[in-house]
Amino acid sequence: MRIGIVGGGQLGRMLAEAGAGFDARFTFLDPGEAPCAALHGDHLRAAWDDAAARERLIAVSDVITFEFENIDAEVVARLADERPAFPPAQALATARDRWAEKTLFRDLDIPLPPVAAIDSQADLDAAVGDIGLPAVLKTRTLGYDGKGQKMLREAGDVAGAFAELGGVPMVLEGFIDFDHEVSVIAVRGRDGEVRVWPLARNEHRQGMLHCSVPQPGHPQQARAEDYARRVMERLDYVGVMAFEFFVAGDGLLANEIAPRVHNSGHWSIEGAVTSQFENHLRAIAGLPLGDTARLVPCAMLNVIGTLPERDAVLAIPGTRWHDYGKAPRPGRKIGHVTVLAADEAQLAERIAAVEALLVNELG
Amino acid sequence: MRIGIVGGGQLGRMLAEAGAGFDARFTFLDPGEAPCAALHGDHLRAAWDDAAARERLIAVSDVITFEFENIDAEVVARLADERPAFPPAQALATARDRWAEKTLFRDLDIPLPPVAAIDSQADLDAAVGDIGLPAVLKTRTLGYDGKGQKMLREAGDVAGAFAELGGVPMVLEGFIDFDHEVSVIAVRGRDGEVRVWPLARNEHRQGMLHCSVPQPGHPQQARAEDYARRVMERLDYVGVMAFEFFVAGDGLLANEIAPRVHNSGHWSIEGAVTSQFENHLRAIAGLPLGDTARLVPCAMLNVIGTLPERDAVLAIPGTRWHDYGKAPRPGRKIGHVTVLAADEAQLAERIAAVEALLVNELG
Repeated sequence: MRIGIVGGGQLGRMLAEAGAGFDARFTFLDPGEAPCAALHGDHLRAAWDDAAARERLIAVSDVITFEFENIDAEVVARLADERPAFPPAQALATARDRWAEKTLFRDLDIPLPPVAAIDSQADLDAAVGDIGLPAVLKTRTLGYDGKGQKMLREAGDVAGAFAELGGVPMVLEGFIDFDHEVSVIAVRGRDGEVRVWPLARNEHRQGMLHCSVPQPGHPQQARAEDYARRVMERLDYVGVMAFEFFVAGDGLLANEIAPRVHNSGHWSIEGAVTSQFENHLRAIAGLPLGDTARLVPCAMLNVIGTLPERDAVLAIPGTRWHDYGKAPRPGRKIGHVTVLAADEAQLAERIAAVEALLVNELG
Repeated sequence: MRIGIVGGGQLGRMLAEAGAGFDARFTFLDPGEAPCAALHGDHLRAAWDDAAARERLIAVSDVITFEFENIDAEVVARLADERPAFPPAQALATARDRWAEKTLFRDLDIPLPPVAAIDSQADLDAAVGDIGLPAVLKTRTLGYDGKGQKMLREAGDVAGAFAELGGVPMVLEGFIDFDHEVSVIAVRGRDGEVRVWPLARNEHRQGMLHCSVPQPGHPQQARAEDYARRVMERLDYVGVMAFEFFVAGDGLLANEIAPRVHNSGHWSIEGAVTSQFENHLRAIAGLPLGDTARLVPCAMLNVIGTLPERDAVLAIPGTRWHDYGKAPRPGRKIGHVTVLAADEAQLAERIAAVEALLVNELG
């Protein structure tokens, strides 16, 4: 099994780790000098749209996949002409454009917070009138982890905001009252079979995911699965897809989708019968999908910016260490820690013990 | 963390897979053309006693370990002169010599089946008189998986047996009545801390391990741990060590030890909080040891000679596939399947389903 991956970050790296049992061989297309996934395969260093590198990736791959979504639709289409390539181009295109994503939710009767497309300051002024403040203005494409967005709290924040974010196409998202945020990771096989992991409850800090805790038996599980299935079927999706929802009242409001393995599913490496990474590979290779049940209470905590003292983390029972081999840098995801426990109370204690060791970037 | 491994088989390969989360780099010294571990690191192709390769391994390693025990004591000693090298030379030397191993058990008051050292046909004739038949004659060194041994069932099998096995130093082992065979996998850190996984019940077929099923709460757990601790402390051991015992009456009889990660511990990759491979790395690198508890009911089944139909195995819920990337050959271990389940009854069903797919070499 020869797998070509567009992108060479930690998601590609963990895909390759999941492929070891299949004796799979990986090639990563990535413009970086030393992308961290290259530890586990061959690195084609080239720009995303480099035609020669694309041909080389095709030549060494039986199937091609993507570890991030900001790839030109044209490049995706060319790869898919030559090899099975998943997820499909329309899924990548939808996920990289916030307005296309919101439109898809609406078309599928999936509830979502108030939103408007913004193509000018006049659009923004009108939308603020409709939606109210606070609201958040986001570029339609290329935003992630709090980048490419601006919080609008009061009237003074609105003036000039369109120009400030670059005058590109944007969306304005209204704020809603919600209880907590969850994500659901789902996988769809080439034959249309869908499997869904338990919902994970997510906690963000400074705009970045801090902690994900799977919640088997969450009252919104069935609803989240239904929404995930609608989206994946509409997009004729193959592979793992992540969905972020706000839990509000007794319902869910869709926040965003990611057409790939996702940070909030990393707990599944140790904590599920089959991880998101292994099932993504099974899906794109046309193999039977694996069981997505949680094995024991567990959680994932991100390591951002600076590694905590490794040996102190390992000394906490039930911890598993994931160092992505990336240079430390403020705001950069460089690893994660999985915490396993015998019951929920022990899990909470262990999470607190790990959190006490994580380096707080704000000092 | 740069780890040098003497040997490049599947044990080395799975050690490297466990090292991914530590961003560890591996170099394998192995005389083979394409040892399967080389997928995950650099391969130094050279004879075990090649001095230049040994120096190269030292140069690229912070710590050195062994994935099999049939290494000359002299080679081990030279490596250990230059780098931390685990397990220690005396442990490797003891484990590769059946008589040294049996003598160690006796010295430590660990019960074992009747045994005698055999250095001539006259020794053999006398020992058969003492121990009786049936008995099994084994070379003191270099035997494994039923090789280098001869079953003596009746008087006619005894005559000439010493010459038949090569006239090298041997042991004669008497047969005992036993209920079943278990192995215990234990790990000892540089600081002397010992952790032990649950006993696994082993089933052999045609002289090779077929299936290992961990048995938390086995009535012999405490005794096995005591024996394992005695051996590891006497040898000043660091790393993972495996112990095979016969369960006879209400006690244990020691069969053999292996100074390394072991086939009967492969279930721990998915089935334990920390696998034998990860804890071996933690031990030799001087890191805190991880929890050895079983997560859920599980089992490991060996794939010997020929791969079964992969997709049929994957379609059985709870299975995880381990293809070592080795060429199929009769009697060769080329992979294993881990089976996870919610309870013991479901586990038994799933084991039976996998067994039905394994290719029976006897046809």
